[in-house]
Amino acid sequence: MNSRITEQLRNMELQKKIVSAAEAASWIEDGMTLGLSGFTRAGDAKAVPMALVDKAKDGPFKVNVYTGASLGSDIDKLMAEAGIIHKRLPFQADSSMRRKINEQELLFTDQHLSHVAEMVRSEVLNPIDFAIIEAVAITEEGEIIPSTSVGNSTIFLEKANSVIIELNLAQPAALEGMHDIYEPGEQGKRLPIALTSVDGHIGSTGMKVDLEKIKGIVLTNDLDSPSTIVPPDEDTATMANHLIEFLREEIRAGRLTNQLAPLQSGIGSVANAVLHGLLDSEFEELEVYSEVLQDAVFDLLDSGKVRFASGCSITLSQEKMKTVFPKLDQYKDQLVLRPQEISNHPEVIRRLGLISINTALEADIYGNVNSTHVCGTKMMNGIGGSGDFARNSRLAIFVTKSVAKNGDISSIVPFVSHVDHTEHDVDVLVTEQGYADLRGLAPVERARLIIENCMHPLYKEQMTAYFEEALARGGQTPHVLEKAFSWHLSYAETGTMLQSEPASLRK
Amino acid sequence: MNSRITEQLRNMELQKKIVSAAEAASWIEDGMTLGLSGFTRAGDAKAVPMALVDKAKDGPFKVNVYTGASLGSDIDKLMAEAGIIHKRLPFQADSSMRRKINEQELLFTDQHLSHVAEMVRSEVLNPIDFAIIEAVAITEEGEIIPSTSVGNSTIFLEKANSVIIELNLAQPAALEGMHDIYEPGEQGKRLPIALTSVDGHIGSTGMKVDLEKIKGIVLTNDLDSPSTIVPPDEDTATMANHLIEFLREEIRAGRLTNQLAPLQSGIGSVANAVLHGLLDSEFEELEVYSEVLQDAVFDLLDSGKVRFASGCSITLSQEKMKTVFPKLDQYKDQLVLRPQEISNHPEVIRRLGLISINTALEADIYGNVNSTHVCGTKMMNGIGGSGDFARNSRLAIFVTKSVAKNGDISSIVPFVSHVDHTEHDVDVLVTEQGYADLRGLAPVERARLIIENCMHPLYKEQMTAYFEEALARGGQTPHVLEKAFSWHLSYAETGTMLQSEPASLRK
Repeated sequence: MNSRITEQLRNMELQKKIVSAAEAASWIEDGMTLGLSGFTRAGDAKAVPMALVDKAKDGPFKVNVYTGASLGSDIDKLMAEAGIIHKRLPFQADSSMRRKINEQELLFTDQHLSHVAEMVRSEVLNPIDFAIIEAVAITEEGEIIPSTSVGNSTIFLEKANSVIIELNLAQPAALEGMHDIYEPGEQGKRLPIALTSVDGHIGSTGMKVDLEKIKGIVLTNDLDSPSTIVPPDEDTATMANHLIEFLREEIRAGRLTNQLAPLQSGIGSVANAVLHGLLDSEFEELEVYSEVLQDAVFDLLDSGKVRFASGCSITLSQEKMKTVFPKLDQYKDQLVLRPQEISNHPEVIRRLGLISINTALEADIYGNVNSTHVCGTKMMNGIGGSGDFARNSRLAIFVTKSVAKNGDISSIVPFVSHVDHTEHDVDVLVTEQGYADLRGLAPVERARLIIENCMHPLYKEQMTAYFEEALARGGQTPHVLEKAFSWHLSYAETGTMLQSEPASLRK
Repeated sequence: MNSRITEQLRNMELQKKIVSAAEAASWIEDGMTLGLSGFTRAGDAKAVPMALVDKAKDGPFKVNVYTGASLGSDIDKLMAEAGIIHKRLPFQADSSMRRKINEQELLFTDQHLSHVAEMVRSEVLNPIDFAIIEAVAITEEGEIIPSTSVGNSTIFLEKANSVIIELNLAQPAALEGMHDIYEPGEQGKRLPIALTSVDGHIGSTGMKVDLEKIKGIVLTNDLDSPSTIVPPDEDTATMANHLIEFLREEIRAGRLTNQLAPLQSGIGSVANAVLHGLLDSEFEELEVYSEVLQDAVFDLLDSGKVRFASGCSITLSQEKMKTVFPKLDQYKDQLVLRPQEISNHPEVIRRLGLISINTALEADIYGNVNSTHVCGTKMMNGIGGSGDFARNSRLAIFVTKSVAKNGDISSIVPFVSHVDHTEHDVDVLVTEQGYADLRGLAPVERARLIIENCMHPLYKEQMTAYFEEALARGGQTPHVLEKAFSWHLSYAETGTMLQSEPASLRK
């Protein structure tokens, strides 16, 4: 056994359990439920799921796959295409899997990320037959050190009948010591989660597991799939500026200081770009309390803008991995990775008073937000942690470009075709047109502000006409119900939500 | 000064500040914002708001009115009819006010009950010019002892520029000592809320206030308005039985014990009736952690079924007031009243793992719930605390009769006309037809179960036809978007959602 292996696999008994990925996959049977590590492409179990896909060539079987969030390495894609998934939860972000979900070839339960651990712990979901967990090390005592994400691994290890560990020798060894593993225990018997600051540590650096349950250790040697975010563009830079302007107003009003409040930012290019925009701001000594730590967080750490970042995963572009991973130990006092139940816990989010920034797929004039469903029916990725954060933050901010598909889709519609965040939970809406601060406003006030500040000029007249017609009918939240989805229907029929060219734009 | 007054108003300096309600009302000017005590008809300031209504005869003015929740004594009705309200938040339940809201004569901000205190504390809402707070006593040191509700009084007292206390000599003096007043402090600087059991006490029995701010004490002598709940009927009894059957299944599955978990029940007749149904159950040593303590809670305490109840208000029928109030001191070790920020706090709700039972106005086949808007536009009462509880409970249960208006309205529709609780936050739906346990299910699974178990036979075929047509179009959450609101539109046009008599019922 080479020294790199014995350095990382320090428990002597477990050294005897090294098996091939194919052998580990052979233990997995039709009808089983698997709990996989992995959160937004980071720290996912790679080899065993891949071997499981191979195994499908020998005959059909189906398993339930629970994870932290989305997986990398095309695992979601390959599993979906192999037809081996019966039910997937709580989040995915792969185009093939998305297609299979929408073709109803597999079941997808779209769930708040902080709730999965509660449901596993209380045995509401199917019992987990195998936890398959990536680790960067196993200690002498047999504690499992997670790699670039923690996700739901802690609870999967605790509740699974059997465990397979993928010991990844390619992940930076410096990850060891960066985790803060805390298990809150059963509802009704638990204590307060003692975290009162972003940089607090309340747990252990490794995950506990009954060593008897570990059936095999698989050695792997591949990095995570890099993130697929695109760089900031003109629109996202403008959105970042609007957001910064809003935050300045909060400082002027005495509601925030120059240090703001701990920041959360959802996954994806837009949220990353908006966070990136803070690089050029006057804000200082910022803190991040988020789920995914993307490229922008490391730029902000490097520039000194951010003093500390707490997350559940590190999900970087290829380029950023190359610069960050070799010097990861330099971030040791500035980074912590927590289980998603803690990174997304309402108790901590409300206590710390986060500023949360998440991406909307569409919003309506009353401030309801759709994060998940294209035209109300087709799943995109899932709600992820956006509900955990928006529901409990000091400031729930949603960002979206005001139009998509070259203007054929307005991201602001009369009535969202699916609701993931209700009017009660959306504080501020930001587009490249401007921002609308909806706090404390009644619905008709919200509508006027969103139309005025956030809508693209292409659609303003069309929406004003809808709103005026609705207003004439009265009500707390005026609607013309028979036309509420007319924009979506128009898009489906004609390829554009634009019902006629606005008079103001006509030559 | 008579002895009853000096017993209850024990601070000598404040005894000098007794004024008439009319005088206190004269201090209130056009454009001011008022923070009133009162939570679901209990412990509301009565005399000064009434004097304010009188004052409107002398000339027009408008004020913003923030409260705990709904008021009694027809105050919301009279204020709305007098036209003196500019904006009202966060909840109301009066038919006249409702009409004025829907006629857009006053603005109504419909808000989670646990969020108001955060918004007042962080000065997001308008500054409060006058807090007008009912008390049952003022101590020697000037602590304000609330009466039958705490609501938002703690934060109103802290943040208001001036304070008027209504000392109510009719309320039971035994209320003193029953409150647990805790102020969490600013977000980002606060400690964990140390409550780890329903019967815990973490604060003081009275509310602190800067005595300099108290401008007047008004003496009053009227009880709260009794609650208007109607007694359990056959349907609500059947719903209670379905709920009990579900809870038994949870016990059989090992997820609950015979003691269940702390119970929350929303306001209104249905939730009260369902709770009442537990009287005849085999469950024991129950605990209540709720906002409003209605008649059923006292029946359960008297029968020994409930060992302890924590709430934010005591809201009783006239009959129940007569039996409970004279012997209130007997409940001293079994009751506590907390600020609504604590009774409804996500941190505590998640930690204790509540079973929450709230009423739906309508639900859709995917489990989205509308709690507030009739046909998507007209406000009923408001979301109240239902979102606080549903979002964070162990079990978020919604109850509704499957039809209304003699069958012309189906409470289960293809697409709810307003979303207050998303599919992610609704665990169990109960009607008099049965229950649907939605936990861990994908949308198409949820739809089949809701149609099968919860829908009224009158509408099952009509819904099955909708669902089959939607299913053929594919998607994670299948819909026929152009027909999604057809049931509501049909009701508006023809007076019934029933589009044709179902074949199975035809002779």
